[in-house]
Amino acid sequence: MASLPNGTSSSSAAAAAGGRGGGAAVVDKEVDFANYFCTYSYLYHQKEMLCDRVRMDAYHSAVFRNPHHFRGKVVLDVGTGSGILAIWSAQAGARKVYAVEATNMAEHARELARANGVADVVEVIQGSMEDVVLPEKVDVIISEWMGYFLLRESMFDSVICARDRWLKPDGVMYPSHARMWLAPIRSGLGEKKLEDLDIAMHDWSLFVEDTESYYGVNMNVLTKAYRAEHEKYYLKSAIWNNLHPNQVIGQAAVIKEIDCLTATVDEIQEVRAQVTMPIKLDMTRLAALAGWFDVHFRGSKQNPGTQEVELSTAPDENGGTHWGQQVFLLTPPLRVNEGDNVKVSFTMVRSKENHRLMDLEFTYELHESSGKQLPAITTKIYLELKKTM
Amino acid sequence: MASLPNGTSSSSAAAAAGGRGGGAAVVDKEVDFANYFCTYSYLYHQKEMLCDRVRMDAYHSAVFRNPHHFRGKVVLDVGTGSGILAIWSAQAGARKVYAVEATNMAEHARELARANGVADVVEVIQGSMEDVVLPEKVDVIISEWMGYFLLRESMFDSVICARDRWLKPDGVMYPSHARMWLAPIRSGLGEKKLEDLDIAMHDWSLFVEDTESYYGVNMNVLTKAYRAEHEKYYLKSAIWNNLHPNQVIGQAAVIKEIDCLTATVDEIQEVRAQVTMPIKLDMTRLAALAGWFDVHFRGSKQNPGTQEVELSTAPDENGGTHWGQQVFLLTPPLRVNEGDNVKVSFTMVRSKENHRLMDLEFTYELHESSGKQLPAITTKIYLELKKTM
Repeated sequence: MASLPNGTSSSSAAAAAGGRGGGAAVVDKEVDFANYFCTYSYLYHQKEMLCDRVRMDAYHSAVFRNPHHFRGKVVLDVGTGSGILAIWSAQAGARKVYAVEATNMAEHARELARANGVADVVEVIQGSMEDVVLPEKVDVIISEWMGYFLLRESMFDSVICARDRWLKPDGVMYPSHARMWLAPIRSGLGEKKLEDLDIAMHDWSLFVEDTESYYGVNMNVLTKAYRAEHEKYYLKSAIWNNLHPNQVIGQAAVIKEIDCLTATVDEIQEVRAQVTMPIKLDMTRLAALAGWFDVHFRGSKQNPGTQEVELSTAPDENGGTHWGQQVFLLTPPLRVNEGDNVKVSFTMVRSKENHRLMDLEFTYELHESSGKQLPAITTKIYLELKKTM
Repeated sequence: MASLPNGTSSSSAAAAAGGRGGGAAVVDKEVDFANYFCTYSYLYHQKEMLCDRVRMDAYHSAVFRNPHHFRGKVVLDVGTGSGILAIWSAQAGARKVYAVEATNMAEHARELARANGVADVVEVIQGSMEDVVLPEKVDVIISEWMGYFLLRESMFDSVICARDRWLKPDGVMYPSHARMWLAPIRSGLGEKKLEDLDIAMHDWSLFVEDTESYYGVNMNVLTKAYRAEHEKYYLKSAIWNNLHPNQVIGQAAVIKEIDCLTATVDEIQEVRAQVTMPIKLDMTRLAALAGWFDVHFRGSKQNPGTQEVELSTAPDENGGTHWGQQVFLLTPPLRVNEGDNVKVSFTMVRSKENHRLMDLEFTYELHESSGKQLPAITTKIYLELKKTM
């Protein structure tokens, strides 16, 4: 049989698993571990995150500019990975830091705490946050839980669980707030993907001919399914990209605001928004919508931070972050002009096959400045890891 | 958090899962489905296999050159995928073909049988072979169960299970025999991988410096673990390759022979061999060992094929197969000369983390024609999908 050298992606794996495991609600824990946590058990992946300067600077500033939140306090780091946030919390003067990590990376976090002289403060606990029992409540919950387009991975669920079980009434969350953004963009990605799709389908048609002539089997009945599989892959999967700000052709809109101190899982399980985004550029093409997020470190109302720190993953000419932005192709694209308005109805729900992946639906509608209104178009997009096709 | 766009491979996923699921013996069925079967639920991957001319020609010849094995007979196709072998069996005159497929590809197999006018003969059953119940015993079991280096994927277990439960006493197996081969080769792959490793480690050392100076955390304690992770990835993982025959510098040796009619799971769960391979080329370098397999279609003793058909995945100047060969780097490589003998003790066991992956161990020892004997070197190699690092 022999699957291809490039193997299978966690998304397809998850899909297949869910195909049997079924439903975002009940996810086989072993499958979840196989498809999700494993990624973080590689130092290689930890390093990728630790090399993200924007990410690192934001958390570093948040901790060290707000020593009053950490000095003498008890801190919980949800998903500590290599332990960096826990170690910073200790360096900032925490009395005790509980660093919870599901993967074997926990052992490395322990070594790192020891090597950096904070082993007496940082206690690494290996286990999933939902199962862990702490000996005391905590003053601060710090966590880097954000996935692509903020909510992919659904890790915030574990942070909410930790907060509800272990945060003191007057405790603070790091980060304290999060926002999801959507913006109209121009991009050549759509053409490229359409080309790739054409090539794939041309290749398929040759394959159908050959299989018929050499092996006497007509494969043509599968052409529709083959196209559907490839359309999903090339056109209907969100595309990771670090966009240049000048690709944003209109006003970005906030589609979701989260107060990490009060948010519930119900609140984030489904995201629905209706936004109207004015086009700011003349004679251009609306090729896609881009999605990104930012988070803020403000402490809490009763216990504010001394200085607000922001971590933004918006398009940035200096290169951006490892999260990049997610590009959602609009097929067909639309010619737009300055003064036009793009009205978008947006829905994001968790994939039935894997609660850590998302199914998006966009209905977009152009209101031209002339008053002319184009018919609404609806397109589905899947926020998942790329299959390594 | 955000795992990388390239995601995680089924091998790492499996490893992590097994880390909890534990043990080759007990494998969580959902995880197995997530990590293994899913690959075959993509038409893209089916096409890759269907485009493998060597593979297709061998099975096509095996079926159509031996009509007496199929005409009026009952056939079981284990893991039918898109259904090609089942359809050929029907075209060759089978009275009934049971085509078992675990993934949703079963639906496509059904369509394909219908479109090719054999829906009355081919009955596609979706389920895992171990669970399926057939209404009758069968005369022929046909299956394309071979993974990299023959046994990777451990799919032959399911064929054995099918044989013991459903094959008539005088039934035949397609293929009927299989062999694993090992050969000494020259290759530049080792240097390339060593370079990659050096680059990765240099990159890591810069990262350690930066993290210390910018963020006050010394990561150096993890250097050893980082190197180990990358040595495993670059040097100790089997490398997929289609070698040119002139890279084979000595006599290939058979390390395992399987009679598909009598083989047991015990027989294939562990493979041990001691072989001595004479070097046939002067002043060259033993850089690696290559592993491949061939299978034969001979029918059975009582009911032989009219014409033996072979499917070989050996190095071939015409390009070979999608299985290619597996390259096992020998670090360090050895200078060798014509007349030298390479003595290799080989062990292959199933990975504790995932019974479909393999852990290999090679002890190699050079006996020079001069009589001089170099000390034996032992190296471990992991036969798994590449992590998409």
